[in-house]
Amino acid sequence: MTHAQTQAESRFDRGQRALSRIDGSAGEKVIASLADIAPDFARYVIEFPFGDIYCRPGLGLRDREIATVAALTALGNAAPQLKVHIEAGLNVGLSRDEIVEIMMQMAVYAGFPAALNGLFAAKEVFAAHDAKAVPSS
Amino acid sequence: MTHAQTQAESRFDRGQRALSRIDGSAGEKVIASLADIAPDFARYVIEFPFGDIYCRPGLGLRDREIATVAALTALGNAAPQLKVHIEAGLNVGLSRDEIVEIMMQMAVYAGFPAALNGLFAAKEVFAAHDAKAVPSS
Amino acid sequence: MTHAQTQAESRFDRGQRALSRIDGSAGEKVIASLADIAPDFARYVIEFPFGDIYCRPGLGLRDREIATVAALTALGNAAPQLKVHIEAGLNVGLSRDEIVEIMMQMAVYAGFPAALNGLFAAKEVFAAHDAKAVPSS
Amino acid sequence: MTHAQTQAESRFDRGQRALSRIDGSAGEKVIASLADIAPDFARYVIEFPFGDIYCRPGLGLRDREIATVAALTALGNAAPQLKVHIEAGLNVGLSRDEIVEIMMQMAVYAGFPAALNGLFAAKEVFAAHDAKAVPSS
Amino acid sequence: MTHAQTQAESRFDRGQRALSRIDGSAGEKVIASLADIAPDFARYVIEFPFGDIYCRPGLGLRDREIATVAALTALGNAAPQLKVHIEAGLNVGLSRDEIVEIMMQMAVYAGFPAALNGLFAAKEVFAAHDAKAVPSS
Amino acid sequence: MTHAQTQAESRFDRGQRALSRIDGSAGEKVIASLADIAPDFARYVIEFPFGDIYCRPGLGLRDREIATVAALTALGNAAPQLKVHIEAGLNVGLSRDEIVEIMMQMAVYAGFPAALNGLFAAKEVFAAHDAKAVPSS
Repeated sequence: MTHAQTQAESRFDRGQRALSRIDGSAGEKVIASLADIAPDFARYVIEFPFGDIYCRPGLGLRDREIATVAALTALGNAAPQLKVHIEAGLNVGLSRDEIVEIMMQMAVYAGFPAALNGLFAAKEVFAAHDAKAVPSS
Repeated sequence: MTHAQTQAESRFDRGQRALSRIDGSAGEKVIASLADIAPDFARYVIEFPFGDIYCRPGLGLRDREIATVAALTALGNAAPQLKVHIEAGLNVGLSRDEIVEIMMQMAVYAGFPAALNGLFAAKEVFAAHDAKAVPSS
Repeated sequence: MTHAQTQAESRFDRGQRALSRIDGSAGEKVIASLADIAPDFARYVIEFPFGDIYCRPGLGLRDREIATVAALTALGNAAPQLKVHIEAGLNVGLSRDEIVEIMMQMAVYAGFPAALNGLFAAKEVFAAHDAKAVPSS
Repeated sequence: MTHAQTQAESRFDRGQRALSRIDGSAGEKVIASLADIAPDFARYVIEFPFGDIYCRPGLGLRDREIATVAALTALGNAAPQLKVHIEAGLNVGLSRDEIVEIMMQMAVYAGFPAALNGLFAAKEVFAAHDAKAVPSS
Repeated sequence: MTHAQTQAESRFDRGQRALSRIDGSAGEKVIASLADIAPDFARYVIEFPFGDIYCRPGLGLRDREIATVAALTALGNAAPQLKVHIEAGLNVGLSRDEIVEIMMQMAVYAGFPAALNGLFAAKEVFAAHDAKAVPSS
Repeated sequence: MTHAQTQAESRFDRGQRALSRIDGSAGEKVIASLADIAPDFARYVIEFPFGDIYCRPGLGLRDREIATVAALTALGNAAPQLKVHIEAGLNVGLSRDEIVEIMMQMAVYAGFPAALNGLFAAKEVFAAHDAKAVPSS
């Protein structure tokens, strides 16, 4: 393997490891769903947000997910991505209560409807989590 | 003083302490500027965001400012309030580099222009800080 | 009952009366749906928007709902809350035609898609109203 | 003059009368400022918002300005147009206090920063009004 | 038929021809769905966007749909209208790949979630197209 | 020079050539202004939007600038970046009249204030262009 391939792979690979670690299977589903419409965009999602940004050492993953959950709740126009990042928040160490606190705080900056819709998204994600956690026996 | 007054004051007073602690003189300027146009709104700003939300124990002030700086950068339509909260972030323990990381990350969720405008706001706030820190001798 | 309790209760109680009067059962459903995820936020919704803002004497409820329906239609990212407030508009004296006028006007300030989505939300709310009004015999 | 011209003129003329009545000299300045960049757009501004929408009988001008001031405050990205419509609100019968009430209410639906920026815009418009009202002697 | 009627009809008729040519049956469905809630707004949709704007000679229809698809993807709060205009883009000469390029580019200006939601809307529209194109034999 | 360096450089270099070609000196000023606050972000701006997206062969630069000018006008919260891209539009072959057409069309999708603010930004950029074009003799 040439050095060039190592380099090229490492940005993508680093991104894929970060995506797995942070978004888990929800992130992989997003990538898979791009395969037949915009495979290059799947690569960009892995390389730029995850390979470049989330891997930077200057801010921890828990802090980064606080920022993302807050921003997506405030913007209020990306419900599917918000759910992925509520999940991601849980994956990197935010508690359910902390996620709820972030959303309540967004009432101050983006209005009560944005906060309410964030809370209802969280409720859905938490319920799905609980459903998965129930033993099958 | 009656109990009722104590209660009534405590929500307002608790908010004022939080506002002072978090936003410092920038927050006090906002409150003062409301005196002749909407004094009741000055009271609401102190009571709800600061007396109710920021004082809740479930999330630390540093985490709360990550959320606020992220949201205001992403929304991109409240430059004066973003500057107040960049200042607030510094007040409650975020480093300049951490604030810059939050803004760069917002490129992913709200686009590069939102991130750029956040970074330029941070640059202004940091410069004003440095100017104040310079000894007059 | 102490004076303090009276004071504390009156803000919440005043809010609950206002919420009932304005949003009717739709508002109560929102509050109920918060019980298991963010009960404190249910209280804030009652206390701040309804106990503090809607109860202020400076603007009538019909005027307030014009403002809310216009804003939620223009923002375009809070469909469930818009429907609650179309209902609320009817409850406080706006006619269906007046609500339709507000939405058409939003085409000017937020674009035709925002106006269209507002009109379709109104259509849904009006149809649900008509369905409830049909006698069961 | 043919009937066709009458019809053609009446939509434009009706709009110009409405623009004058509602926005006053502020509206005329906007139209004038379009003359060298997009004169056709000046015509559309007169014909569609003012000739078509504001002239509709189903909602009074005071109600229409409540809707517009609320929407522009909530959107938060059109400060010059918000100022024109604060002025317009005064022209069609809203009191300063009512305009302030609308803006405070927007804290609920679009966040405190949007409400604050609306209040500061109102403060500026009211001050300009007072300056003009001072006798020159 | 008087001259006035000719004029009056020509703006509406020109708009209806443009709407048919650009949005096809999707546009007609939108108009039909307004009939019982806001028939005047159906007329405005035909007259202003289509009769006035899309018919202007200064920019071709393919260019106009690039602008519309980009704007609706970036705004991210008008999914039904975005789908109509993805369809419209195909009708006036944009290829599927070009539409996908526009959406990927929106990641830069409005964030990755806006781009993703645009791509998923395109995927749906393309799939519906393919389903219709399948011969029934 | 190793292959890896070639690869690494080519993404950055390709981006820098695209940035120069599209945004001209306005783009270089943005990059320079990031040097002391977020130099890594300057690199990302060059690499992702310009090195990855604008260089893709599937859509021409003129088409890409139609999309960007439309999106930034519609979003309405990034005036400095909109001006850079009005300039960019002129650089890659859009005429002033075509840029004006794009902005007028945005009235349909994002409201008249967004269109007006876009037109006033264009007026400023065009005037600056004319000022530069005046011979010094």
